Amino acid sequence: MFEEISKVIRSSKDIVILPHKRADGDCLGSAFALLLMLRSLGKNAEVILEEKNPKIFSILCGTEPGSEIEREITPDLAIAVDCGDMERLGKRKDLFVSARVTANIDHHPTNTRFADYNCIDASAAATGQILFGLMEYMKIPLTKEIANNLYTALSSDTGRFAYANTDSKIHIIAAKLHEAGADHVGINEFLFEKNTLSKIMLMRDALNSFEIFSGGKIASVSVTRQQITASGVTDDDMNGLINIPRSLETVQVAVCFKELTDENAVDVSFRSNTIDVAEIAKKFGGGGHIRASGCTIAGDLKDIKKTVISEIIKVM
Amino acid sequence: MFEEISKVIRSSKDIVILPHKRADGDCLGSAFALLLMLRSLGKNAEVILEEKNPKIFSILCGTEPGSEIEREITPDLAIAVDCGDMERLGKRKDLFVSARVTANIDHHPTNTRFADYNCIDASAAATGQILFGLMEYMKIPLTKEIANNLYTALSSDTGRFAYANTDSKIHIIAAKLHEAGADHVGINEFLFEKNTLSKIMLMRDALNSFEIFSGGKIASVSVTRQQITASGVTDDDMNGLINIPRSLETVQVAVCFKELTDENAVDVSFRSNTIDVAEIAKKFGGGGHIRASGCTIAGDLKDIKKTVISEIIKVM
Repeated sequence: MFEEISKVIRSSKDIVILPHKRADGDCLGSAFALLLMLRSLGKNAEVILEEKNPKIFSILCGTEPGSEIEREITPDLAIAVDCGDMERLGKRKDLFVSARVTANIDHHPTNTRFADYNCIDASAAATGQILFGLMEYMKIPLTKEIANNLYTALSSDTGRFAYANTDSKIHIIAAKLHEAGADHVGINEFLFEKNTLSKIMLMRDALNSFEIFSGGKIASVSVTRQQITASGVTDDDMNGLINIPRSLETVQVAVCFKELTDENAVDVSFRSNTIDVAEIAKKFGGGGHIRASGCTIAGDLKDIKKTVISEIIKVM
Repeated sequence: MFEEISKVIRSSKDIVILPHKRADGDCLGSAFALLLMLRSLGKNAEVILEEKNPKIFSILCGTEPGSEIEREITPDLAIAVDCGDMERLGKRKDLFVSARVTANIDHHPTNTRFADYNCIDASAAATGQILFGLMEYMKIPLTKEIANNLYTALSSDTGRFAYANTDSKIHIIAAKLHEAGADHVGINEFLFEKNTLSKIMLMRDALNSFEIFSGGKIASVSVTRQQITASGVTDDDMNGLINIPRSLETVQVAVCFKELTDENAVDVSFRSNTIDVAEIAKKFGGGGHIRASGCTIAGDLKDIKKTVISEIIKVM
C-alpha cells in the first residue's frame, strides 16, 4: 500500500501537509511526524493548519506549524492527513486542489478517496499507525522527535491504548517509539491529565448540564456558545467533554453537544461500545467510526438535543 | 532468576497465594494469574485475601477468591505476592510462616527478602511483569484468563502505560496479552473510566466549589455532608475528587475538603509535586507522604477552608 505514495513523495520537492480542520492529537501528531519525515528526505515541506493552533501541539511536535494559507508557489504535492473527505480541509480545499498531485493518508472507513493517490487503511487504529508503516517502508530513521509525534497520534486515538482499536500491532509500535525515546510521561500527562483553568470551568458547565435518558443507557452533556466564549477554551479543550457522559457505568451511548460560536449550529459527538453511532451521525449528515462519530447540525441547541436524543432512543 | 522459584513450585502440591492487604490491581491481577498458572500445572492452589474483596476484581479475574484464613492442612508452599514486607500480609502472616516453604514474588525496591525463596525484580514496572516472565520460563500456556489478569496488573501499575515505569518491554508483553485475547477495553474501562451516577453528581458538586488561590498555584474543591448524603457515594467514590484540583496545569498544591457526615469535622486531603504537604497536614494533626497527605479538622467547613488555605500560602 505504500508503493505509490512513496514514489509520489520521492518525486516531489515542494510538499504541503494538510491536517483536517479542528485537528486532534492523531491528526497533528501524524502531520508533524510526516513533516519531519519529509524534511529528513530533503523535501521543502510545510504543515498548513486551518486554525491558529494551540501552543500545546507545537510544544509536543517540536516544530512550528506553518499558518499561511496563501502561498506563492504551487505545491508539487498536497497531502491531506486524517481527512475523511475534502470538506474536512475547510478553507484549504483550494490549496489542496491547486497542487500538481494530491494525496490522502487516512484511516477513516468512510474516506471518499478524493485524491490522486489514496493511502487508506481503515484497519489502522490511528493515521499515526499508517505513517509509522510509511516511515518503515521508506526506511526513514525513527528519531526521538518523530517518535514523540507518532506517540501523540497513537496515544490520542487509542485513548492511551484503552480503546477497542488497540491491538498487539499498536503495542509493538509503541515499544519501538519507547526505544526511540518518546516522552510518554509528558505526552500522556499533557494529552490526558492536565487541564487549563478554562477547561475546568467548561467541565463544570458540562457537568451542570449532565442528563440521563432511558434509565441511564444514554447520557449527555452540552455547552453553550456563551459558556465556551466566557471560559475561553480552545477546540482541543472541548474534545474531552464527551468522556463525562461516557464515564457513567450504565451508559451505552454518550453524547456531547457543543454550540458553534460563529454560526447557529451545534457540533454533536457520539461514543458507544454497543451501538453503531456512525449510523446515527449519518442521519444528521455526519460520519465517523462505529464507536465514535460526530455531526454538525444547524439550529438551536434545545431543539437539536431533543431530536438527537429521540433518534438515539429509536435505535436502542 | 526463575530457576529456584520454579523448582519449588514444581515440587509443591498444596500452595497458598497471599496478596498484600488492601490489594490493588497489580497485586490481585498477579495473584490470580499465578493461581491460574499453578492450577494449569495441576497444583492444589488457592488465593487467600485479607479483606472480603470488591466484586470488581473477581469479575476481572474470572475466578472466585478463597477467603478462609483458617486452613486444615499445612500448605507445602506459601507465596506472598507484591508484598514489600511481611507486615503487608496482615492477619495472614501466621499462615504464611506455617507453610513448609515460603516464597516472595515482588517488584518493590524496599522488599525485605523475608521468605525462603525471594523472586524480586525492582526493575519490573509491576509484579505482573515478573509473573509473565515466570510463566514464559515455566512454559505455561498463556490463556485468555491469565492474559486478563496480567493485563489488569500491568495496566494498573503503569497507569495505562503512562507512568515513568512503562518501557518497551511492558508494551511487548501487552502485545502478547492482546494476542492471547485480553479484554483490554473492559479492564481499562473498569479500572479507570467508569463512574456511578452518584460519583458524577458529587464531581459536579465539587467542580461547582472549585477555587484557585495564589494565581492558580493552589486549587481546591469541597463537598458538604448534604451533598455527600444526597449523592449516596461511597468512600471509594470520593477518593478521586482530589484529581480535579490536581489537574489544573498551574497547580502546585491541590486540596480537597470533605465534610464528615457523622460529626462536625472536615477531612482534608493534600497533593503536590513540589511542596512537602505532609508538613502541612501535620500542623492540623494529620500526616502522610511528602506528595500526598491528609488530616481531619473539627469545625465548620468555611472556617477550616480559610485556615488551611492561609497555612498553605505561608509555606509557598
